[in-house]
Amino acid sequence: MSSLSIVRTRADLRALVSSWRRDGKKIALVPTMGALHAGHLALIEQAKASADVVIASIFVNPTQFAPHEDLARYPRQEAADIVQLEAIGCDGLYAPHVEELYPDGFQTRIVPGAVAQRLEGAFRPHFFGGVATVVAKLFLQVDPHVAIFGEKDWQQLQVISAMVRDLDLCVEIVPAPTHREPDGLALSSRNAYLSEKERAIAPSLKQALDWVADTIKQAPTTLNSVLEQAKAQLLAKGFHAIDYLEACHSETLEPWQVGDPARILVAAWLGKTRLIDNRGLD
Amino acid sequence: MSSLSIVRTRADLRALVSSWRRDGKKIALVPTMGALHAGHLALIEQAKASADVVIASIFVNPTQFAPHEDLARYPRQEAADIVQLEAIGCDGLYAPHVEELYPDGFQTRIVPGAVAQRLEGAFRPHFFGGVATVVAKLFLQVDPHVAIFGEKDWQQLQVISAMVRDLDLCVEIVPAPTHREPDGLALSSRNAYLSEKERAIAPSLKQALDWVADTIKQAPTTLNSVLEQAKAQLLAKGFHAIDYLEACHSETLEPWQVGDPARILVAAWLGKTRLIDNRGLD
Repeated sequence: MSSLSIVRTRADLRALVSSWRRDGKKIALVPTMGALHAGHLALIEQAKASADVVIASIFVNPTQFAPHEDLARYPRQEAADIVQLEAIGCDGLYAPHVEELYPDGFQTRIVPGAVAQRLEGAFRPHFFGGVATVVAKLFLQVDPHVAIFGEKDWQQLQVISAMVRDLDLCVEIVPAPTHREPDGLALSSRNAYLSEKERAIAPSLKQALDWVADTIKQAPTTLNSVLEQAKAQLLAKGFHAIDYLEACHSETLEPWQVGDPARILVAAWLGKTRLIDNRGLD
Repeated sequence: MSSLSIVRTRADLRALVSSWRRDGKKIALVPTMGALHAGHLALIEQAKASADVVIASIFVNPTQFAPHEDLARYPRQEAADIVQLEAIGCDGLYAPHVEELYPDGFQTRIVPGAVAQRLEGAFRPHFFGGVATVVAKLFLQVDPHVAIFGEKDWQQLQVISAMVRDLDLCVEIVPAPTHREPDGLALSSRNAYLSEKERAIAPSLKQALDWVADTIKQAPTTLNSVLEQAKAQLLAKGFHAIDYLEACHSETLEPWQVGDPARILVAAWLGKTRLIDNRGLD
């Protein structure tokens, strides 16, 4: 009954994609690290609206984790992921083993530029190089017409867009809005790490972004003090540390200047769990 | 009478390549920095033997030159290049302006790995990153089936091959043997820098490689002392400095070990001109 084609090697992937190409299908790719939740499913729906066939990838990419990060405990639940992909009508799943993407002798890296230096890049120096390299490889292996990336990872979306532009990759990047719980918490596979108490505190992150946006709309010149107040509020609510809470140029991620398109981005710690979120400013 | 299509923008390039693709043509790319000589023409001939249509590119890539290197004085002679390409029956020429490949905001780089660290990479730290990035861009813009690279730039050939493998670029790399003057000097656009006296000395480079190869074949254990003797001979002949003269694993470019496929590579200075050459060992 299922029509989900599961491939694990480049050769099988090429055969699958070539058959779609021969039939003149427009192909959308949704790259994921698995542990699929409703946020991923919204990306798949976006992909179905953007193309004729949809292929998801599941690959927990080791090169974007630093040694002290959560690679080993990152949630893996492929059987459950497959059930969800079948139910939503995804056409293909590419779930390669690590050796398929990084065979012996692998050594070439893609290094993003200024857009990757601040915010996440400052706190996770490995991160965007690993992401850019694996995403370029997925683009070149899958050869999709479009690829869907969630706005939840806003800086990643800008890094990938810059890479596609700079390296002349032949794929259209389609952003998808952040999917949220009813209380505003952005969906993330890492939410599974939260204790009950932490989960109750977590929605304050989105509330802080909204409060900053509303307050600045009234009094734009108070930006810096508003951001400091919002950080203090987050710490008071129970967050243990705030890596950043900043207003930035929405594409370059440089510190916001009057007249720039604006995005507020935040990363903060609840116990051992690091949450990120962002929103636009009018 | 000429059938050489000259394009300078991505849009015109795409139109040209798409028309070939629609006609089912197999496409070969020959990337060059112009100042074409018989060595380049041999690459074009190799391309014609490997595909249905041949497109050369001419682009003096600024990102592969260090500030103290010869970017400004690198020979440029596009009109003469075009005459040669027409005469040999090349089908296309892509000769973009710098802004076409590096528009404002360009920031993503490709960084090769271990294969690029030693030899040329040690003496020209900018070099292979610049080469890899521009070649990847050319591959993705032109989308050829095959690309021809001369064995004269042996390490570059290995760097590009590793990049194609690592990033899953969909192009076959075809190596072409080094084209030489009757006295053995490898053809190079930089030979134009040589004075008459330097030009008379230059063939010693190939002679040194041949002498090393012949001598080691008789007595393999003497490799290191043979290399040292060959360096002394080059300095005695009139070379002013030797950046390296080494025996390496022919693919990884690591120092040669017994049992490895072997390549001897040399870079040496005649006045202000830096010459490179290489050859295989049985």
